[in-house]
Amino acid sequence: MLSNWKILNKYREYDARIFTLFKKEVKSEGLNRTGHFYTLEVVDWINVIAIDKAGDVILVKQYRHGTEANSLEVPGGAVDASDTDPLEAAQRELMEETGYTSDKWTLLGKVSANPAIMNNFCYCYVAEECEKTHPTNMDAFEEIEIEKYPQDKFLNLVRIGEIHHSLAVAATGLWKLHLER
Amino acid sequence: MLSNWKILNKYREYDARIFTLFKKEVKSEGLNRTGHFYTLEVVDWINVIAIDKAGDVILVKQYRHGTEANSLEVPGGAVDASDTDPLEAAQRELMEETGYTSDKWTLLGKVSANPAIMNNFCYCYVAEECEKTHPTNMDAFEEIEIEKYPQDKFLNLVRIGEIHHSLAVAATGLWKLHLER
Repeated sequence: MLSNWKILNKYREYDARIFTLFKKEVKSEGLNRTGHFYTLEVVDWINVIAIDKAGDVILVKQYRHGTEANSLEVPGGAVDASDTDPLEAAQRELMEETGYTSDKWTLLGKVSANPAIMNNFCYCYVAEECEKTHPTNMDAFEEIEIEKYPQDKFLNLVRIGEIHHSLAVAATGLWKLHLER
Repeated sequence: MLSNWKILNKYREYDARIFTLFKKEVKSEGLNRTGHFYTLEVVDWINVIAIDKAGDVILVKQYRHGTEANSLEVPGGAVDASDTDPLEAAQRELMEETGYTSDKWTLLGKVSANPAIMNNFCYCYVAEECEKTHPTNMDAFEEIEIEKYPQDKFLNLVRIGEIHHSLAVAATGLWKLHLER
């Protein structure tokens, strides 16, 4: 049996807008050791494997400040406090980033962003039979290009690492497992 | 064409041992806007789909400070500055966490941990025909339980979200794509 970890103290160290950094003083009963760990508190996220009526996967390419490079990804974003359900966030983000909407949504699963250092989850959806029904509506700092690929080509882009965002790759894995059920 | 983003200033804000928090002042030429973004600089990581000679997948369960819960995952860890290659880190972490070693390693791919806020990548491997050759050798704060599952059961644990670490799910997706080549 894994032993219990007790949080003795928790210090709010730094507010970085999209996440807050905490320092925790924790004690492992089993190891009988006390130490400090740093974690980030972050809102939940969503992402979407979006497939249009022709069967193509709709992707977004955008500059990412972490890697300081452009990144080809599945559409995604943050769940807002006003969202009643992560699905609402997924539908909004898909529409805002791509202009596409769908009536056929399935939750593939949720993955923890990084349980070692983050508290949040990313809900992964597939949206089928998407149609372009709206103009895009970017946030102030969003600049996004849309690319569409047949499903086999999309999977190959993941395989060769052209699509490499871990949450996009995780969603792809869940989608593959969903298709094989 | 996506426009260029120019980093005007970069401030080291907080050292949190396993990552360093930076605040960047960046300018988008295309949007003609300047703003601040927070990012984390982190060493690269590795993880391993480890399969023993019986065909079972070797998993580790441990307490995670981000989610404040136990998490069932594939073995993994950080690439050390002294590692000549991420493979060296993968072989070491698998041996230290599980006591298993393998002579049959394949790089499945590398995923960006989170390109929006982190600069690092996770190299995902499959290690086949693993054998228990060593005692485990945990870090001071590591307390790990080993669980082994047949491959179909492992995939089902990912499917139902019992295994939910995004990097483990991403590695599973890459492994599935690798098997289908």
